[in-house]
Amino acid sequence: MRRSVIGGAKRSSLFLLNQAHRSLLSPSPPPLHHHLGSSPSSSATALLLLLRRLSSSSASSPPPPNMSNPVTVQSINPKVLQCEYAVRGEIVNLAQRLQEELKANPGSLPFDEILYCNIGNPQSLGQLPITFFREVLALCDHPTILDKAETQGLFSADSIERAWQILDQIPGRATGAYSHSQGIKGLRDTIAAGIEARDGFPANPNDIFLTDGASPAVHMMMQLLISSEKDGILCPIPQYPLYSASIALHGGSLIPYYLDEETGWGLEVSELKKQLEEARSKGISVRALVVINPGNPTGQVLAEENQRDIVEFCKKEGLVLLADEVYQENIYVPEKKFHSFKKVARSMGYGDNDLCLVSFQSVSKGYHGECGKRGGYMEITGFSPEVREQIYKVASVNLCSNISGQILASLVMSPPKAHILSFPSLFLLEMNLMNHILPRKTGFLNLWRGVPRLPEKAIKAAEAAKTAPDLFYCRHLLNATGVVVVPGSGFGQVPGTWHFRCTILPQEDKIPAIVSRLTDFHKSFMDEYRD
Amino acid sequence: MRRSVIGGAKRSSLFLLNQAHRSLLSPSPPPLHHHLGSSPSSSATALLLLLRRLSSSSASSPPPPNMSNPVTVQSINPKVLQCEYAVRGEIVNLAQRLQEELKANPGSLPFDEILYCNIGNPQSLGQLPITFFREVLALCDHPTILDKAETQGLFSADSIERAWQILDQIPGRATGAYSHSQGIKGLRDTIAAGIEARDGFPANPNDIFLTDGASPAVHMMMQLLISSEKDGILCPIPQYPLYSASIALHGGSLIPYYLDEETGWGLEVSELKKQLEEARSKGISVRALVVINPGNPTGQVLAEENQRDIVEFCKKEGLVLLADEVYQENIYVPEKKFHSFKKVARSMGYGDNDLCLVSFQSVSKGYHGECGKRGGYMEITGFSPEVREQIYKVASVNLCSNISGQILASLVMSPPKAHILSFPSLFLLEMNLMNHILPRKTGFLNLWRGVPRLPEKAIKAAEAAKTAPDLFYCRHLLNATGVVVVPGSGFGQVPGTWHFRCTILPQEDKIPAIVSRLTDFHKSFMDEYRD
Repeated sequence: MRRSVIGGAKRSSLFLLNQAHRSLLSPSPPPLHHHLGSSPSSSATALLLLLRRLSSSSASSPPPPNMSNPVTVQSINPKVLQCEYAVRGEIVNLAQRLQEELKANPGSLPFDEILYCNIGNPQSLGQLPITFFREVLALCDHPTILDKAETQGLFSADSIERAWQILDQIPGRATGAYSHSQGIKGLRDTIAAGIEARDGFPANPNDIFLTDGASPAVHMMMQLLISSEKDGILCPIPQYPLYSASIALHGGSLIPYYLDEETGWGLEVSELKKQLEEARSKGISVRALVVINPGNPTGQVLAEENQRDIVEFCKKEGLVLLADEVYQENIYVPEKKFHSFKKVARSMGYGDNDLCLVSFQSVSKGYHGECGKRGGYMEITGFSPEVREQIYKVASVNLCSNISGQILASLVMSPPKAHILSFPSLFLLEMNLMNHILPRKTGFLNLWRGVPRLPEKAIKAAEAAKTAPDLFYCRHLLNATGVVVVPGSGFGQVPGTWHFRCTILPQEDKIPAIVSRLTDFHKSFMDEYRD
Repeated sequence: MRRSVIGGAKRSSLFLLNQAHRSLLSPSPPPLHHHLGSSPSSSATALLLLLRRLSSSSASSPPPPNMSNPVTVQSINPKVLQCEYAVRGEIVNLAQRLQEELKANPGSLPFDEILYCNIGNPQSLGQLPITFFREVLALCDHPTILDKAETQGLFSADSIERAWQILDQIPGRATGAYSHSQGIKGLRDTIAAGIEARDGFPANPNDIFLTDGASPAVHMMMQLLISSEKDGILCPIPQYPLYSASIALHGGSLIPYYLDEETGWGLEVSELKKQLEEARSKGISVRALVVINPGNPTGQVLAEENQRDIVEFCKKEGLVLLADEVYQENIYVPEKKFHSFKKVARSMGYGDNDLCLVSFQSVSKGYHGECGKRGGYMEITGFSPEVREQIYKVASVNLCSNISGQILASLVMSPPKAHILSFPSLFLLEMNLMNHILPRKTGFLNLWRGVPRLPEKAIKAAEAAKTAPDLFYCRHLLNATGVVVVPGSGFGQVPGTWHFRCTILPQEDKIPAIVSRLTDFHKSFMDEYRD
């Protein structure tokens, strides 16, 4: 789920083909901020191509009923059939088959490795974990070594001290026990303090629910808010497919609002109003507004004034504001700054009685990218005690999230402070290194800005192959280069526009090769399908 | 979720009041196997008391609508309201309040600590983790120390070797990366090999889905099988409330079949048939049969012949067999043995084309009890490729389960083998110690067999307090003794019978005090409410 910053914000992008101005093959990099006008954070987000919703091609037609088998695609929950999750969909399955082929028959394909740019998963691509975090986790996994002399030589004093602090926050120091359903209280205290320090407004540890990554928290809120297809959730287009998948699984209606590519994927309240009214006119009860800030896959960072308008809109219209804020640490332009929606609402004077607000956070993003640890939380404010009791009950059914993920969430929200660190501090070095490398990787993306419109001939060829044009392009790209990207249709796009989404996380030394492979492929693809 | 063995199987029990023969207060322990006839494994499961479904009291009446708040209990998903999860319900909330009171005002209550016997959570009660497991986890969390000299002094050679093996199974040795949606392939290979060694029949790593504990796996199958309340799932009564909660959340119908307390909570196929036919006559499409073996909360262990009948029944009736086998390692009587349903089905000659079978396993149980690590898996066999693709898609939406839990699941299914361990082996010592202690704890339970019927006066007092009698008893017990047990209604019971469920996991030296507190409480309760 990690996505990358491009220019301003994150390093994943929805690349646009047919509105771009410059050639991918342009020998000199186009000027920064050219394409998207005044919005530097999103200036690098527009690039390549590709097409319409894949629903017709991805919902494979069910096979005939099999009487000897009690479970068929016809007899399962149709909501499961409707759900799509493109970042692990058809293209990724093809990539896995090609990877096996490469292993079995090295040299049999035109490339020697698969490069996964489909999902933000930096440690799978060689990014090393932050030592401080891993030392603390290891010590909490096996606390009996904390007292041993050898440990002083193997682990930093900072990590040993933090591990003791954390163990003292855990009842009985039992890192192998189920915790409180919302997570260990002491860790929630730490996280609440981190939120307070970030926002300058109070945070209550009892508002925090620790979860296995952000995904289960999103599901929990969808489960709470959606009773039937008459319940609608306003979602940005493009969106991260967790939202469309979760709404589908819970049987609700996704009410799309379109981000404006022309203004750097801007979020216009007028568009929200228009879509809300249209949904209401169809009898849909709109329950919540999803805002992803910093954006995924677009990378935009909302301006504070825009956020205030959104808060006002939710308050006026009685919508729960579901704020996906998992990229809060992935902003690399000095002009842009992350403001949590809670901070914005509180600074407007709105408290618990004015707005139902949920903020999602994850340990998978930021400079650390600890995707495999599955840590995260949601902070819920503005819900009545009766409703909170119901949320608590749903959280209880899975008992608790994993304790290592809980510990990591507390570390992420309360990293070591420079002035109390022992020196030399490996933590500061690593954190600064990552925050130096990540925006540098981003720079490479600018080479790709501005690609010509996908030719009619390619669209026709895709139709002939009964494939959506964006999937057609991505499949050709993978077969030719080993680079895995995701068709834009999985994220949603304005009908008639085609995109793909690419996360640029491989190690820095591999990026020139990726760029070169993509460039060569695109050239030959366009040569083949030129109108 | 850990539950304890009593006599034969697990150490949690549904204690029965009104069918028991001997007094709790009997000065000499009653003979083993007295109460439940010929079934030694369940002989210790009948004991105390308490009542009817709590639905009327636990479903609190909704408050009046609050116009300033977009989310009220009236406006949320009614399936969430219907869901109950008793092991973390009202009694546990009361216990948490009492614990805070004890902390704020020591000495203010008639006891000085809360003893949580509501849920199997052994490490919260002082059970130490198995060193080998924790060493391997710590080394995998922080692999850079594997090469350092001090590590040899801190960690056993066995753990270092296993950590290397595991890291070599993980692509890029990246324990912080999202894995394959089903879990890391190499770890699934290890688990499949462990299943093969256990069963003597092949297991396919591609049939295994690693999950954050067993709960998400159960939810995944319910999500797949349940489209509406017309889809029914056959569930034992008593059952573990995960099943009733998950069926409620997914909007299906729980079709109860009653375990026969008289025969040691036996599972009769005639009862299954009766309930299946009754459900079908009401127009319900029964999709699956849940069997919990070893039983929770009953502790019964199914005989192999009984399992063959169940397999035959599922095959004939076209039901998916959902086999909760998380207590497979918690059997402490030599006459009883765990047989996986897959082994039973394969030994009958039934393969993938004959039966849809799902086996659930968890790292939270067994001699290790690693509840907080949230590791587990399901092994699915007999599903068509099209349906498997749908299951894979649902698993993908949450990306993957946490990697530490995945590693632990591989360790549990492939513990060190005695002949290759370096000596002296702490692992063997600890495993043997736990397998020695656990059944000894169980022994204490036998003191409690045989309790007189709950007096009418107590039932009337409960009615007057608008409380179900089992909840009434459990609440009085908690207020008087600090011991937390769960009313039987959360697990289901034959109407007119009252139970509570108690897990006996505190450290051994505390058990006499618990027994004495319970005995004294029961005596004074009965004195107060004698008819």
